[in-house]
Amino acid sequence: MKKFVNEPSAVVKEALAGIAAAHPELRVDLENQIIVRSDAPRRGKVGLVSGGGSGHEPLHGGFVGLGMLDAACPGEIFTSPVPDQILAATQAVDGGAGVVHVVKNYTGDVMNFQMAAELAGDEGVEVHTVLVDDDVAVEDSTWTAGRRGTGATLIVEKVAGALAETGASAAAVAAAGTRVNEASASFAVALTACTTPASGRPGFDLPDDEMEVGVGIHGEPGRRREKLRPAREIAALAVEAVLGAKPLSAGSETIVLLNGLGGTPLIELYLLYGEVAALLDKAGVRIARNLVGNYVTSLDMAGASLTVCTVDAEVLRLWDAPVRTPALRWGA
Amino acid sequence: MKKFVNEPSAVVKEALAGIAAAHPELRVDLENQIIVRSDAPRRGKVGLVSGGGSGHEPLHGGFVGLGMLDAACPGEIFTSPVPDQILAATQAVDGGAGVVHVVKNYTGDVMNFQMAAELAGDEGVEVHTVLVDDDVAVEDSTWTAGRRGTGATLIVEKVAGALAETGASAAAVAAAGTRVNEASASFAVALTACTTPASGRPGFDLPDDEMEVGVGIHGEPGRRREKLRPAREIAALAVEAVLGAKPLSAGSETIVLLNGLGGTPLIELYLLYGEVAALLDKAGVRIARNLVGNYVTSLDMAGASLTVCTVDAEVLRLWDAPVRTPALRWGA
Repeated sequence: MKKFVNEPSAVVKEALAGIAAAHPELRVDLENQIIVRSDAPRRGKVGLVSGGGSGHEPLHGGFVGLGMLDAACPGEIFTSPVPDQILAATQAVDGGAGVVHVVKNYTGDVMNFQMAAELAGDEGVEVHTVLVDDDVAVEDSTWTAGRRGTGATLIVEKVAGALAETGASAAAVAAAGTRVNEASASFAVALTACTTPASGRPGFDLPDDEMEVGVGIHGEPGRRREKLRPAREIAALAVEAVLGAKPLSAGSETIVLLNGLGGTPLIELYLLYGEVAALLDKAGVRIARNLVGNYVTSLDMAGASLTVCTVDAEVLRLWDAPVRTPALRWGA
Repeated sequence: MKKFVNEPSAVVKEALAGIAAAHPELRVDLENQIIVRSDAPRRGKVGLVSGGGSGHEPLHGGFVGLGMLDAACPGEIFTSPVPDQILAATQAVDGGAGVVHVVKNYTGDVMNFQMAAELAGDEGVEVHTVLVDDDVAVEDSTWTAGRRGTGATLIVEKVAGALAETGASAAAVAAAGTRVNEASASFAVALTACTTPASGRPGFDLPDDEMEVGVGIHGEPGRRREKLRPAREIAALAVEAVLGAKPLSAGSETIVLLNGLGGTPLIELYLLYGEVAALLDKAGVRIARNLVGNYVTSLDMAGASLTVCTVDAEVLRLWDAPVRTPALRWGA
């Protein structure tokens, strides 16, 4: 295994120490393993919390800050955060207006966030939950009942975070997040497996001339293996999968996220984005905003995912609203 | 080779088409292979141009925009841009106040930028050049006489770009860039080699338990091969190399860039940054600003580089000034 680590079991704690050193504008609680906006809790503002297994950075810790998350609770690599940790994050951002949890649809995450929500409820904190399940590749998977949550999580967190800044209610913030999820579809292709520090070797075997079509962000199997194809054909596979699952009417406005899974260089992502944009244009889909880069990753996996989210003027306004986080920043 | 490409020879052109689709705020000239700010040339403003071989994205195209570069000219992968291309970029941003070229110290780049500067001079454009040679690993290398230019390029482009926005003269902008370069030192470690689309296989052999200490951004040999070590020891190697080459007095203020070489996930970069920050703190060096991420890359190489740049209040003010580019954005 070739990684910048010390002891494999300490990776998450030590990376959090690095985040604390790099971002003095955030409050990193090493004991509870949570990352919190330094101005939280803000009186009267809904708190937005997300989390999940580590290994998907910058998701979620890189999205904590003005206009996005109030706190993130990273679990160990590819392992759900524990209820106490989620509870600590929830309490840290509760300003009396309730807290919204953004939860990717993995069985462990769903269970632990639910338990934390109940514990918080017992202490008088009103918790609403947005479940993200945008990955149209497969129904049910290694760690998921139903569809997996992937790239749309970023868009949900951005839009819900912007709405929370306006003083909207917890119910309204959660409803906006749920609408974004429902309007989103994602599909991923892996060229290589990723290696977790704990195992020290690739999570699955993928022959040198094959790709995993519809892979999950932990390397869960997709729809099929097939021979590696040129970028334009891979783009077509992804666009067909996404539009097939959530047909768009001609003239629909969208936000498109062309996301790298961690090990794919930016030059390839841009090349792939060019193909995707041309195909969407041909399908009459309008890309109002786009984002190209490594945002929802799988450690060092070579691969990419496409997320298409249909938007209206209100969602677009919230997307454009100022955001100041380590990984996403504009207008502030 | 597992990459999102069509024909290997078309990678740069097709990635440029993707950049054009993703960033309508930039002007991508596919024929001349240059990326230009859409408001260029601006009357009376010094034009800032950089470029070099592709494969280091987001450098340089991702740094075109308000407060940074006016144009970038990407060559083929790991291949210098040609003089005509550099000339086209220079002419595209010439607003009558002169143009500054930021050139990384590789023999081909130096030669071609110089030729372009002479051609531009013949047409009455005053060109100044900032040569970046911050990599303290080795003197002379595969494609370089003297020291190689690496991570400091980002800081040079940011600071010079901010100064150019204020209406400073070409001589002043070039002088500021040169001062940043002189105040910077970088050192990189590779865990794996990168694979160019043209060759289809790793550029060098690196055994499974070894790292290249002092590697160049095209995989040029460093100081030595040695057994892979824990992150804290790798951080110590890099910090020692940097401070050994450019000793800092206690209390010095710095900008620190902990840069991924393309294939290293963010969680490892943050872990490594935590180690670097602790070591610099122990050495009495103050980190006034930092940047952690993949900015000056070597395609899919797993590895990282450390850049330390000593700053004064003026440089810090220029670093903090608004920037709006695809890869670096704040305050705008």
